Amino acid sequence: MLDCVIIGTGAAGVSAALTLKALNKNFIWLGNKDLSIKIRSAEKIKNFAGLPSVSGEEMKSAFLKQIKAEGIEITEGKVNGVYPADGGYSVMCGQQLYEGKTVILATGVEAVKPVKGEVEFLGRGVSYCAVCDGFLYKGKEIAVAIDSDEEESEVRLLAGYARTVHLFRLKKCSEIIGENIVNEEGVITEIKGGMRAGAVVCGGREIAVDGVFMLKQSVGADKLVHGLKAEGGHVVVDRACATNLAGIFAAGDITGRPYQYAKAVGEGNVAAYSVNAYLGGVGRA
Amino acid sequence: MLDCVIIGTGAAGVSAALTLKALNKNFIWLGNKDLSIKIRSAEKIKNFAGLPSVSGEEMKSAFLKQIKAEGIEITEGKVNGVYPADGGYSVMCGQQLYEGKTVILATGVEAVKPVKGEVEFLGRGVSYCAVCDGFLYKGKEIAVAIDSDEEESEVRLLAGYARTVHLFRLKKCSEIIGENIVNEEGVITEIKGGMRAGAVVCGGREIAVDGVFMLKQSVGADKLVHGLKAEGGHVVVDRACATNLAGIFAAGDITGRPYQYAKAVGEGNVAAYSVNAYLGGVGRA
Repeated sequence: MLDCVIIGTGAAGVSAALTLKALNKNFIWLGNKDLSIKIRSAEKIKNFAGLPSVSGEEMKSAFLKQIKAEGIEITEGKVNGVYPADGGYSVMCGQQLYEGKTVILATGVEAVKPVKGEVEFLGRGVSYCAVCDGFLYKGKEIAVAIDSDEEESEVRLLAGYARTVHLFRLKKCSEIIGENIVNEEGVITEIKGGMRAGAVVCGGREIAVDGVFMLKQSVGADKLVHGLKAEGGHVVVDRACATNLAGIFAAGDITGRPYQYAKAVGEGNVAAYSVNAYLGGVGRA
Repeated sequence: MLDCVIIGTGAAGVSAALTLKALNKNFIWLGNKDLSIKIRSAEKIKNFAGLPSVSGEEMKSAFLKQIKAEGIEITEGKVNGVYPADGGYSVMCGQQLYEGKTVILATGVEAVKPVKGEVEFLGRGVSYCAVCDGFLYKGKEIAVAIDSDEEESEVRLLAGYARTVHLFRLKKCSEIIGENIVNEEGVITEIKGGMRAGAVVCGGREIAVDGVFMLKQSVGADKLVHGLKAEGGHVVVDRACATNLAGIFAAGDITGRPYQYAKAVGEGNVAAYSVNAYLGGVGRA
C-alpha cells in the first residue's frame, strides 16, 4: 500500500508532490501529464512569488521541468471514486485501482454546477467516467455533456459503444463530428427518470436516453468520496488541510477561495506535511 | 491612512506584497531590504514550486528581482509595537509611525524563547528596540542580548549611549569589539528586578543593570500587538488568516508549522485577499 495517492495536477498537486518527494514518501500522482487546464490557460500571473509575470504556459513549463528534475512522474487518468479500504483508501482511476494510506484531493473547483437530477441519478444512469462505464451502453442511446475540448477522446470512446451520442456543451467548446454524434444546441437543464435516468431536458425538449455522461474537468470531490464534508461546493478543511475523513486531505481551489496559485501551492505543501504527520512523521505542531 | 501595513520581509511578506499590488491596494511594507535571514541562509530548497532546487541566496535574488519589476519597495525598519488607531492601527517602526486600516503580520517565528522575566519586565526596563529606547540609557549600565550578527549596528548605537554594554549572545554570533562593550560568556537565564528590571542572571552570576535590550530577529507578535491571541508561540488564525483582532491578519511561520516557504507564500496570498475583502472588495467566499 502506498503512503499517499495525490489526485489532481494543478498547482496544489505540484506542490504536494514536490513536498512528499522531499519527505521521501512513496506516492502515486494521478492527473494530466500536461498539468491542469487552469494552469495552462492563464493569460498572465503577476503575483506568484518565484515566477515573475508569467503566462500559464510558462508556469506549466517551469513546473514540468522542476517535477522532471526531481524524478517525479504523473500517471494519466481521471479518478471516478475513492473508497475506504483496509488501512487506507482505494482510488479508482479508469479501470485501475490504487491503494494509499492517505489521499490528497487537489482536483480543483467544479467549474460547472450540477444540473437538476445529476446528483440524484449518479450511479443510476448518470456517470462521470467514459472509460469506466462506457461499455455498459453498447448499442444504446446516450446523452453526453462536456465542458472542454479536452474531453473529445472520451466522447469518441463513447461513440464507439453507443448507437447515438447526443452531445451537449456545458461551456464554449468545438463541435465534435462523428457519424453517430448529434451536436445538440442549448444546455441540459434537467435529468429525469424513474429508478434510473431516462431523459434529458433541453430548452423545453425532452430527449429519451439510456444513460447520461457528464464529462467535466473537475467534479465536486464530495461526489467522489462518500461522506466527505463539503459546503457551497468546497471541501471543508481545517488549517492542516485535513477533511472530516481520517487520512483524506484537500488542497487548492477545492477548499475554497481565493482561487489563487500561491494559495494552492501553500496548501499542497501543508497537506503533504499533514500526510507525513498522519503516517507518524514530522508535521504540524 | 494606508489600506495596509505589511510587517516582515520573509516569503509570506513577499507574497502578500505581490498580491496587494496586484489588487491595487495602497500599502507600506516594513522589514529588511535584503529580505529575511531565513530566506537568505537556506542551503537548498527542493520543494518550492516555481524555483527548482535553489539556494536561499538564489531565492532571495529571484524575489528581489520580481518585487522590483512590480515596482514594490521595502521600507527598512524594525517594528516595536502595533496600536489601535481611529479606523485602523498605528504601527511604530523605529521613530516612525505608519497608519493602516489593516495590518499583515509576517514576522516569522520567534527563534529564541523568552527568558524568565523578559515578558514581565517588558516596557519596564526591558526593550526590543535600540532605536526607540536607547536614548533612555545615556551613561547607564545595560545588558544587551543578540541572536545574529545583523544586530551589530544596534549594539553600536546602544554603546554610543550607555556607559557599559554587557553583551550576551542568544545564538552563535561573532564578538563585537568596542571600548565599553563587555563580551560576556554564557546566556542570560533570568531578568530580575522590582518595579523595573535591575539585573540579569548568567551562570549563577548576577549583573546589576539599568536596562536590558533583547535584540532579536523576530519577537513574538503577541508581544507587539496587545490582545492578540497566541498559542504555543504562534498567532492563532482561521483559514482566512484572520486573527482575533478585526483588521489584523497573519501569515507564514508566525501562524505555526510547517515552517515552509510554500506555506508562507500561500498564506501571504490568502492574507492579502482577506485584507481586500475586509476593505470591501473581493476575498474569501
